[in-house]
Amino acid sequence: MVNSTTKHIATDTINALRLLANQMISQAGSGHPGITLGAAPILYELYANQLNLDPTKPDAINRDRFVLSAGHGSALLYATLHAAGFAVSAQDLSEFRQLHSNTPGHPEVGITPGVEATTGPLGQGLGMAVGMAMTEAKLHAQFPTVINHYTYALVGDGDLMEGVTHEVAALAGQQALNKLIVLYDDNDVSLDGDRKRSDTTDNVARFVSYGFDVQHVADGDDLNALHNAIEVAKQTDQPSLIAVKTVIGAFGPFAGTNKAHGTPLDAAQIATLANALQVEVNDFELAPELLADLRQRIQQRWQAQVQPTPSELAAYNKFTQVETVKLPELTAAIKQQAGRKISQHVIQEFAQQLPQLWGGAADLVASTNAVINDSPLYNAADRQGRNIAFGVREFGMGTVLNGIALHGGTKVFGATFLAFSDYMRAAIRLSAMQHAPVIYVFTHDSITVGEDGPTHQAVEQIMSLRLIPGVDVLRPGTPDEVAVAWQQALTATNRPMVLILSRGKLGDQGNPTQAQSALQNGATQIQTKPDAKVNLIATGSEVQIAMAVSEQLTVTTNVISMPDLQKFLTQSSAQRAAILPTDALNVVIEAGTSLGWQAITGLDGLIIGIDEFGLSAPPAIVQAEFGLTTEVITEKIMRRLAEK
Amino acid sequence: MVNSTTKHIATDTINALRLLANQMISQAGSGHPGITLGAAPILYELYANQLNLDPTKPDAINRDRFVLSAGHGSALLYATLHAAGFAVSAQDLSEFRQLHSNTPGHPEVGITPGVEATTGPLGQGLGMAVGMAMTEAKLHAQFPTVINHYTYALVGDGDLMEGVTHEVAALAGQQALNKLIVLYDDNDVSLDGDRKRSDTTDNVARFVSYGFDVQHVADGDDLNALHNAIEVAKQTDQPSLIAVKTVIGAFGPFAGTNKAHGTPLDAAQIATLANALQVEVNDFELAPELLADLRQRIQQRWQAQVQPTPSELAAYNKFTQVETVKLPELTAAIKQQAGRKISQHVIQEFAQQLPQLWGGAADLVASTNAVINDSPLYNAADRQGRNIAFGVREFGMGTVLNGIALHGGTKVFGATFLAFSDYMRAAIRLSAMQHAPVIYVFTHDSITVGEDGPTHQAVEQIMSLRLIPGVDVLRPGTPDEVAVAWQQALTATNRPMVLILSRGKLGDQGNPTQAQSALQNGATQIQTKPDAKVNLIATGSEVQIAMAVSEQLTVTTNVISMPDLQKFLTQSSAQRAAILPTDALNVVIEAGTSLGWQAITGLDGLIIGIDEFGLSAPPAIVQAEFGLTTEVITEKIMRRLAEK
Repeated sequence: MVNSTTKHIATDTINALRLLANQMISQAGSGHPGITLGAAPILYELYANQLNLDPTKPDAINRDRFVLSAGHGSALLYATLHAAGFAVSAQDLSEFRQLHSNTPGHPEVGITPGVEATTGPLGQGLGMAVGMAMTEAKLHAQFPTVINHYTYALVGDGDLMEGVTHEVAALAGQQALNKLIVLYDDNDVSLDGDRKRSDTTDNVARFVSYGFDVQHVADGDDLNALHNAIEVAKQTDQPSLIAVKTVIGAFGPFAGTNKAHGTPLDAAQIATLANALQVEVNDFELAPELLADLRQRIQQRWQAQVQPTPSELAAYNKFTQVETVKLPELTAAIKQQAGRKISQHVIQEFAQQLPQLWGGAADLVASTNAVINDSPLYNAADRQGRNIAFGVREFGMGTVLNGIALHGGTKVFGATFLAFSDYMRAAIRLSAMQHAPVIYVFTHDSITVGEDGPTHQAVEQIMSLRLIPGVDVLRPGTPDEVAVAWQQALTATNRPMVLILSRGKLGDQGNPTQAQSALQNGATQIQTKPDAKVNLIATGSEVQIAMAVSEQLTVTTNVISMPDLQKFLTQSSAQRAAILPTDALNVVIEAGTSLGWQAITGLDGLIIGIDEFGLSAPPAIVQAEFGLTTEVITEKIMRRLAEK
Repeated sequence: MVNSTTKHIATDTINALRLLANQMISQAGSGHPGITLGAAPILYELYANQLNLDPTKPDAINRDRFVLSAGHGSALLYATLHAAGFAVSAQDLSEFRQLHSNTPGHPEVGITPGVEATTGPLGQGLGMAVGMAMTEAKLHAQFPTVINHYTYALVGDGDLMEGVTHEVAALAGQQALNKLIVLYDDNDVSLDGDRKRSDTTDNVARFVSYGFDVQHVADGDDLNALHNAIEVAKQTDQPSLIAVKTVIGAFGPFAGTNKAHGTPLDAAQIATLANALQVEVNDFELAPELLADLRQRIQQRWQAQVQPTPSELAAYNKFTQVETVKLPELTAAIKQQAGRKISQHVIQEFAQQLPQLWGGAADLVASTNAVINDSPLYNAADRQGRNIAFGVREFGMGTVLNGIALHGGTKVFGATFLAFSDYMRAAIRLSAMQHAPVIYVFTHDSITVGEDGPTHQAVEQIMSLRLIPGVDVLRPGTPDEVAVAWQQALTATNRPMVLILSRGKLGDQGNPTQAQSALQNGATQIQTKPDAKVNLIATGSEVQIAMAVSEQLTVTTNVISMPDLQKFLTQSSAQRAAILPTDALNVVIEAGTSLGWQAITGLDGLIIGIDEFGLSAPPAIVQAEFGLTTEVITEKIMRRLAEK
C-alpha cells in the first residue's frame, strides 16, 4: 500500500509538519515542541489516510472526529489542519499564540476550523471523544446512512495518568464503542522527567482490563505499522487503543528528554532541525506538492463516501431539530412533591416532545430522578435507549456530556448530587468555554440532605458554580420554576445550564406566569405588597421559608424568588428596582455560603446563609441547628429593622 | 489457626455486628444496609486478627491505620469500633445519624474515636490510605522502631469506578507501598443496579497493571481464606489488593440486589434477619463474651508489639515537632523575581528549619517551583527523599496530601497550576472538613499565564476557593507577604492553607512589618495618605498595578494589599475601618471574577475584575485586552469619582 514515491511524499510531509510546528513555536517564543516532533507521523496518517472529512465543510455532520486530548500539541494540529486545507492560513500559523488569532495556545473549538474540542486540561479530551463515539453509535443505529463515522483521539502519558481517563475508558469498554480509536503517544516522558519517576503503569494491560482491543506500534515512524494498526482497529468490535512508541522531541536537541516538552528551539536549533529532517519550510507554508498530495487524499475519501438516503436525512433533520418546547402543566398533586420529583415529571413531558433528548446519572438515578421513564438503558445491545448509566464517574460524565454536545444531533443531561459537582467542576468549566449546551442536574442541594452529613451537604457549591463564566445556574424556587428552568435548559444552544434541585418539597407558592418572569429576568416577586419595608429574596427550597417568614413579620414584605442571580445582575437598574424596590431592606435567604450575595444586599442588607459545613441529622433538625427556621429568621429581620 | 470454638465466636460476632448495624440503620430510618451485611467478615477479620492498635489510645502514633473508603458502611464501622472497645458506646450507636452524636451518617475524623478519615465522597478514602502508607514508609525508614505499621483500606465497586482511585493506585504501585493492603468488597452491585450496567472493568487485571499484588477470596464468609490472604499480603513487596467476593445485603430481604444498598429494614425484616443470622442483639450492645473475645485479641496484639527505643522516640519527637519558624530575609535581587520563584527561595529556607517538611507537584515542579532543592525524590529506593513526584494527578495528589496530614509526623505541600485546582476541589473540601493542615501551592494565578490561553488561565478559581468553609486562601501581593504566607501555612495545625502565587513578578513594594500585618489581619495599607479619597485594594500581582495607579490618580490614595479576604471580613468594624477608611471610595483590583468583592465595596464601590474566560496571547497583551493597565484603571476610577 505504500510505494517508494508515496513514502517519500509522506516522509517529507511529516518532516515538514515537524519543522513548521517548531517554527510556529519558536516564533511565538512559547509552546510545546516535544509532542510535535514525536507525534507528527500519527497526525499525518490520520489526515492523509484515515479521517473522512471535508476541510471546506468543517461542520459536516458525518465527518470523522479527531480530538487532540494532548492539547499542548496544538502547533502540530494547526500545521496539519493548514496542510489538509482547512481555513487555517500560513498567516494564521505565523500568529500562533497571538491575540485573537485562530491559532491559540491550546486548541479551542469554535476558534479554529477543524478543531473538534477545547483541550489542554489533560484527560478531558479522551472523555469528549467517548461522548462523540456514544452519540455516533446512537445516531447511527437510527440513521445508518446519515451518521456513520469513526472517532479518534490522541492521548499522551499525562492524559493517561489523569483519573478521568480511567472513568471514560472504563465506560467506553462497557459500552463496546467499536468505532472509537485511541492513539497513545507512548514516549515515556512527562513534563518533570521520565514517566517512571511517577508512573509505572502498564497502560496496555490497563486498557485490556477495560475491554479495549490493544495494539502496539513499536516505532512511531513506521508508517506501515501505524496504518495497519488503525485498519485493524476499525474492524474490531471493541474500542481500540494503539500504543505508539515515539521519541519526544525526536530529531531535536532535547530528543527523549523532558526538556523537549516545553522548550522552544532557537534559530540555530531550528536550522539544525531542518537539516536533520532534510526539509525546508518557508513563510509557514508547506511545499505545493506536499499540500496537493495531502489534500487530494482527503478529497478522494470524502467523495467516495456513501451518501445518506434523502428520506433518512429528512428524518434525521426532523429528529435533531430543537422545537420550541411546550411547558407541561403541573397538577396540584405534582406541585406537592419534592423538587427532584417535579423534575422527573417534567422530564417525561419534555422527553415526549423531544425525541433527541437522552441522559443519565452518575449511578444516582434512584436519587436524582433524572430518568426517561419509558425508555431502556443505552448500551451496545440497544443504541436507542435514552438512559445512560454513567457509573460512579462524575468527572467522566461531565467530559462525556461535553463530547455529546459537541458532536451535535442530540440534547443531553447528566445528574448527580450537588455536593459531588466538585468532582466534575473542571468539565463544567470546559462546557462553558466550549459553549456546549449541556444540562447538568444537581439534586440534594443543601443541608436538607440531612442524615448523610456534611460530605453530602452542598453549602459552597451553589455560589461556586455561579462564579464560572458562561454557566447559567438555575435554582428554581417554585414548582412552576422547575418546569420553566427545564424549558430554558432544553432550548439553550450555546451555554451549559445547571439545574439545582431540592431533595425535599418546594412548597406550592408561585404560578406559571411568575415562573416565566423569574427565569427571564433572574428574579420575580411572588408576593407583592405596597410600600413594603422588606424585600425577602430567596432561592430554591428557601422560597417557601421566605413565604412563611413574610407571614410572621409585622412589617409589609415582598417575597422574591431569584432562581438566576447572574441574570438578575445583568438587568437594568430600573428593572432591578422594579423587582427589588430600593427603599426596602434586602434580606437574602439561601442555605449556602453567603459571600457573593452582597451584590444584592450591599453592606446594609441581611444575608441568611450557611458559612460552615453541615451536620448529620434529620433534615428539619439540621435546618433548626443552622437557624433556617421561620422563627429565627423572623427574629433576625425584626432585630435588623430595629437597628436601622 | 481457627478451631471450632474460635470459629463459633467469630461467626457469632460477625453476625451480631451485621444485626447491630442494621438495628442502628433502622432506628435512624436511613443508612446503607447492603455493605454492612456483605462486608462484616472483613471488618471482623481486621479488628480481631490484624489491626495493631489500642482502642483506649486512638491516637497512638504507631497504630495500624484502617480507612473505610466506602464510607456508607459507617454503621458497620461504628458497631465494630464499639465492639473493639473504642469510646463508642451502645448509646452512641443508638444515636446513629442524630445531631451531634459521635456516629454521624458517614465517618468523620475527629468526631468518632477510631475513625481515621472522613469518607463518603467515593474514591478519596483510598487516596488517603495511600498518603498514610507513604508517610509510614518515610518515617519508618528514619525511625524504624517508632513507626512500623500497616495501612488498610476497604473499597467498594463505586470507589473503584472513581477516577481518583486510578490516580492513587498507580502512584501506590510506582511507590511500591508494600505495607498498603486494600480490601475490595467485590459484590457486583452499585446504587442503581448491577455493576455491569455501567462497568465491566476487570479490576484485578487493572490493579496488576499498577504493580499491585492481587489475590482473590472467592467467598467473603470464608474467614480462613480472608485471614490467609491478608497474611500473604503483609509479606509482599508490592501494595496488595484482595478482591473479596461478597453478597450485598447478605441474609437480608434484598440480598444481591441494589435495593439492599440504601433501604433500611423494617421491624419485621430485622426480626427475620436476626433469625437468619441466629444471633440476638439487645439495646445496641453485643453479648459480653463476644466483646471480651474481640477486645482480648486486640489487647494481646498491642501488648506484643515491639517498643521504640527511647533514643529513637526522642529523635522522632524532635523531628515531628513544628517549631516556630523564622522568617527568611529576602534580598533585593530575590524580591525582583516572580512570585513562584520567591516561593522557591522561601521553601529552601524553611526546609532547613523544618526537617519534617516534604512535598511535590502534579508533574509541574519545573513551573511551580515547589521543590526542596537539595533533596532527592521520595521513592522506594530512597524513603528519605523530600520531593514527591505525584504525577499528572491533581485530585489524587489532594487525597494523598490529606492522608499524609492525617497520619501526622510530617508537614506537606502539593502544587499545581491554579486553573487545575478545579480537578482537586473535592479533596480540598475534605482537607477543610477534616481540619487537615495541608499546604496547597497554586501558581500561574490568572491571565498573566499568557500564551497557554483560557484553559490555563484561572479567573474564577481564586474566589471559588474562598467559598470553601475552613480553607485559608492567601494571595500574597508583595515579596514579604510570600514569606509570611508560607510561615503562616507551615505553622497551621488545624486547617488547610492555599497559597496562590503569580507566574510573573510581584514588584518590590511593601516591607516585612506590613506583610506580617497583612497576613494577620487579612489586609494592610502599604501606602497610607491622609484624607485619602480612594482606597485602592488589590491582591497578588495586582498590588503592583494598584501602586502604579495610585501614582497616576490626581486624588490622594491609600493602597491596600489584601492577601486574605476571608480573614479581613472577620475583623471588627473598627479594625476594618482603620485599614479601609470609610470616607474613601473602595476600589478593588483582582484579575478574577468580581462576584464576592461586593463584601468590600458594597454597591457603591468599584471592582476591576475579569468576568469572562481569558485569551491566548503574551501576558502584557492579555492584560491590556482586559483593561488591567494603569491607564485604563486610572480612567475608570477618575470617572467614578466624577460621578459621585
